[in-house]
Amino acid sequence: MEQGTALSPPGEHGEHHVQHVDEFSITELVNRQIAATAPQRLAEIVAALTRHLHDFAREVRLSESELMAGIQFLTQVGQTCDDRRQEFILLSDVLGLSMLVTAQNNRKPAGCTEATVFGPFHVEDSPKHALGDDIANGAQGEPCFVRGAVKGLGGEPVANARLEVWQADEDGFYDVQYAGLDQSRARATLQTGTDGVYHFRSILANSYPIPHDGPVGKLLAALGRHPWRPAHLHFMITADGYETLITHVFRNGDRYLESDAVFGVRESLIAEWIRHPPGPGPDGSVVPVPFYTLDFDFVLNPLPGAAGKTRN
Amino acid sequence: MEQGTALSPPGEHGEHHVQHVDEFSITELVNRQIAATAPQRLAEIVAALTRHLHDFAREVRLSESELMAGIQFLTQVGQTCDDRRQEFILLSDVLGLSMLVTAQNNRKPAGCTEATVFGPFHVEDSPKHALGDDIANGAQGEPCFVRGAVKGLGGEPVANARLEVWQADEDGFYDVQYAGLDQSRARATLQTGTDGVYHFRSILANSYPIPHDGPVGKLLAALGRHPWRPAHLHFMITADGYETLITHVFRNGDRYLESDAVFGVRESLIAEWIRHPPGPGPDGSVVPVPFYTLDFDFVLNPLPGAAGKTRN
Ligand SMILES: [Cu+2]
Ligand SMILES: [Fe+3]
Ligand SMILES: [Fe+3]
Repeated sequence: MEQGTALSPPGEHGEHHVQHVDEFSITELVNRQIAATAPQRLAEIVAALTRHLHDFAREVRLSESELMAGIQFLTQVGQTCDDRRQEFILLSDVLGLSMLVTAQNNRKPAGCTEATVFGPFHVEDSPKHALGDDIANGAQGEPCFVRGAVKGLGGEPVANARLEVWQADEDGFYDVQYAGLDQSRARATLQTGTDGVYHFRSILANSYPIPHDGPVGKLLAALGRHPWRPAHLHFMITADGYETLITHVFRNGDRYLESDAVFGVRESLIAEWIRHPPGPGPDGSVVPVPFYTLDFDFVLNPLPGAAGKTRN
Repeated sequence: MEQGTALSPPGEHGEHHVQHVDEFSITELVNRQIAATAPQRLAEIVAALTRHLHDFAREVRLSESELMAGIQFLTQVGQTCDDRRQEFILLSDVLGLSMLVTAQNNRKPAGCTEATVFGPFHVEDSPKHALGDDIANGAQGEPCFVRGAVKGLGGEPVANARLEVWQADEDGFYDVQYAGLDQSRARATLQTGTDGVYHFRSILANSYPIPHDGPVGKLLAALGRHPWRPAHLHFMITADGYETLITHVFRNGDRYLESDAVFGVRESLIAEWIRHPPGPGPDGSVVPVPFYTLDFDFVLNPLPGAAGKTRN
């Protein structure tokens, strides 16, 4: 008997028109199934993702066991996520995808402060502090006094800018990483004065490894990559008439500046944390231990139609 | 004060050499971090994946909220997986990735039976049955008698081939999808005789939707795609001296042959299930209800060095 045709009366075949499927034709077959009624942007994204994913699998001639290993890896990444941990953001971060998306969505004119990755440690509604306050709130580390101005691209001071800052402590941990700690530490929301100036006291941020006890950490280890990020302060600055700025300020001299595990370092965001002996701090208080000062100005990008606007 | 340089003594900058990071340069920056000591195949796969993923994100100009939506989707896919369900395999299936990988790893000479996707419903060590047995074991559906030969590419019968078969019932469910059912139904392991022939009795397989109550089902719905697979029998055939064959036999006339949700249909795998009135079945028994017969021969690809070998 012949393969696949036995017992079928002559002529009964052919009522279907199945496309030839192989590792090349499949890409178009898949994308042709997307309905014309599907939301256009979703259709565009899925079609492009399918094409690049297929190109990848063909280029490396992915084997069946490698596909299965990949599926198991992604499953573990998903199952490592919980209320306090987002392992897929980490994966996006270490593959440089987060930084790529940040960069292409935050192109700014020369002179503006550059954006970098948001990271997973931001918290909504951090405690409001007055200018000059100590925001450490129990976080451990050497004292650090931070100040600077928020300006528009034309050099104008930005008054009443909302400035959120968050950072790791001397052990490289954010408050939210301490199990059982239900209070904010080393994070705050401040507002610039009419002169656009901000200043606060905190602790020295330290370099830290991204959480690396999960599947993403295992991947980094397998690739011979370390999980460290150079010391930095996170800032998110919002002001009427300007593009919101999400960025870091990095500490010059950090050994991980050239190999940030999440590729967030931009030259323009590296600044000097200056070490001082015990003595009077910039706020007039006497500091009995060595302390640091950091001065950093932010330049915001005016929104279209609001350029050069003087705020009052 | 100048941005990022205030308070820094002249000349103290420049001890680092941070590369310029933007949405284009990042791809090489990421791949340059892979250590020379990393396993070569892993390095190759991750580097290619990073390139295609980045190309995708640039091509569609992925926004920050779209990246986050993608991360949340993948997290849900991972969290839908458990001991009985593998939602990432489903995702790979509906994106055509599984079929692509199957096709590129199972190229066979003309005349051989083509391979298709493995699917998630295979079970190791299914019950051994003698030729002619009814393998339904309680699964519901119209009777169906299946027979055929297992041959080598030269036409030689393949004796003692191990043939695993598994299928859905009239409601479109596999045994493993029934919560609390701890017995195998409509799945078996058979062995061909010296003439290479196999035959068994079972039930008619029906078309079925892939599990679509999870995130993959939501994605299909959003794309205007249905979750259905045309009716099929799964086969895995193993024999000394031949490449293992994992494939389906599809039922001609099924309405989903041209739009299989997982793109597994190949023209050569479509066969006639012939309907008969009540009466004597092909095994001599009297069948009091209408029944089906299916005849399908499999042609295995000889392993290199074993071609044309006569088995005994
Ligand atoms: Cu690509
Ligand atoms: Fe951070
Ligand atoms: Fe199936």
